[in-house]
Amino acid sequence: MPVISNRLTRTLNITHPIISAPMAFAGGGALAAAVSAAGGLGLIGGGYGDSTWLDEQFAIAAGQRVGVGFITWSLRKSPSLLTDVLKRKPAAVMLSFGDPRPFVDEIRDGSALVMCQCQNIDHVWDAIDVGADIIVAQNAEAGGHGALRGGLSFVPEAADLIAAHSPNALLVAAGGIADGRGLAASLMLGAEGVLVGTRLWASAEALVHRRHHEAIVEANGDETIRTTVADIARQIPWPRGLTARVRRNAFTQRWHGREDLLERNAAVEGPRYREAFAEGDPDNASVWFGEAAGLISAIEPASRIVERMAADAASRLAGHAGATLA
Amino acid sequence: MPVISNRLTRTLNITHPIISAPMAFAGGGALAAAVSAAGGLGLIGGGYGDSTWLDEQFAIAAGQRVGVGFITWSLRKSPSLLTDVLKRKPAAVMLSFGDPRPFVDEIRDGSALVMCQCQNIDHVWDAIDVGADIIVAQNAEAGGHGALRGGLSFVPEAADLIAAHSPNALLVAAGGIADGRGLAASLMLGAEGVLVGTRLWASAEALVHRRHHEAIVEANGDETIRTTVADIARQIPWPRGLTARVRRNAFTQRWHGREDLLERNAAVEGPRYREAFAEGDPDNASVWFGEAAGLISAIEPASRIVERMAADAASRLAGHAGATLA
Repeated sequence: MPVISNRLTRTLNITHPIISAPMAFAGGGALAAAVSAAGGLGLIGGGYGDSTWLDEQFAIAAGQRVGVGFITWSLRKSPSLLTDVLKRKPAAVMLSFGDPRPFVDEIRDGSALVMCQCQNIDHVWDAIDVGADIIVAQNAEAGGHGALRGGLSFVPEAADLIAAHSPNALLVAAGGIADGRGLAASLMLGAEGVLVGTRLWASAEALVHRRHHEAIVEANGDETIRTTVADIARQIPWPRGLTARVRRNAFTQRWHGREDLLERNAAVEGPRYREAFAEGDPDNASVWFGEAAGLISAIEPASRIVERMAADAASRLAGHAGATLA
Repeated sequence: MPVISNRLTRTLNITHPIISAPMAFAGGGALAAAVSAAGGLGLIGGGYGDSTWLDEQFAIAAGQRVGVGFITWSLRKSPSLLTDVLKRKPAAVMLSFGDPRPFVDEIRDGSALVMCQCQNIDHVWDAIDVGADIIVAQNAEAGGHGALRGGLSFVPEAADLIAAHSPNALLVAAGGIADGRGLAASLMLGAEGVLVGTRLWASAEALVHRRHHEAIVEANGDETIRTTVADIARQIPWPRGLTARVRRNAFTQRWHGREDLLERNAAVEGPRYREAFAEGDPDNASVWFGEAAGLISAIEPASRIVERMAADAASRLAGHAGATLA
């Protein structure tokens, strides 16, 4: 069975060019450790800044080399989280959704690689400016927070900029990648690897309610929407232009397009949302997955997902995707 | 120099698995003929049903084997267009944006291949139901009309459905594909070839105003938007859910988000839009390109675009995109 080896696998000293997305709430220590154990690199989701939770998750991942990812605008409100996390010696720290500049030096001083996730070309320029070691181009089909660029053009456009202005940086593609086809395609587009969210959200190790897992197995890829309604209900002040891709359900149907009304009713709707989410209600709170849902038909151990993705990609690359080159 | 050969090239009897998108107004006989002459398959844009224009364009393409594409909901209003066009013996007829059922038998009786372009999974089911020979999965990053699915997950999801339910049908990816990386990635995702719009819109043969061509050379891929404002201004009744990706400019800034007001002012704004478009004004009418704009830095002959895309894709496939398979 061939194994893909490239600059990313060598730089991160991993077997497969697969990184888990640091999904808030869902991506804990068990998932990150399982991904690293399978030969990728697992990232714990730093989320909105619960240091006790982060401590617990790093403890769960103890013994595996993992990294962590932060929501940059949120980290600015509690920067000591980064200081604490760096004591755990993460392999890499990913910053997404905000200006990376305030944090880059500290990450580097902590001997972690700097990863910057980008949603558009301005963000890629920011990542180049700070000398990011790994630049993640996140496509619109990604689950959870993100923006609007499509991967087939965004990834090569980012690759061209990086090749011209920061050739040592490594490009990673994110969004819509759930199997070996997505990994092999990402390499063809100019990335050196992939960051995987939705497919690993649908793993046994993810901290996801059973009923939410049932929902992704049933869904096809058309059944998601980019919206701000979950953030409005939860009163989490996400910056303009960033939306969350979630399952279309009764909650998004009720509020998407009526954001002003939801905002005025947040005192009532917020607790209602949080209660529904805690109960695993797949209809009255957001279910956080992306368009790759259409490629997922079972909840599986992360190791099986990572190993199959890597093996299938290697075999597609070796076989030139079934084309004959004459 | 290796050449990609697969089921699509054999079925269409072409050298490269590259088809030109039948872009309304921009994709005339010269572009279609140039793409076919370069080894792909050119499709003339059937547009909104100007039979005189279509006659002229087929005359211009005379001597080359080309196909044609229609806007399905518009074709229903003037179905004799299809009857007329089939007398020209097109290699293929593509239907997009509407129910293909009323037209499939006539296309088949005319000895043309049936192509159905799909924007979501329901459309893929329709294409499978009618026994389409070629099914195009169009991604959200495409220029002009389309919808919301992202290519990295939509293309393989469509591939899985086709493999299970219509294995003889050939899948083609569209949207965001402007060079060999996009073609090679599409093959990895499970497509057999690509349908190329924006990159060929930016060709010498496309019927595009010089100032619009200048605009695409300057633009990066962030500078487009999916919107309905061009259709509202032109009073073209596109079905709900289909939007047009165009350059962000003064026109989209003025009206996107104020669609109701534009609709009420269409008697004034419509003629204003049409005049600006005719003059090549890149600010006060829509400039019809997609996110692949960020990969385009020159207006070139279609032959050079097709040949380079094919050669670069073949070489990326042969070299496994720089990865070592050990």
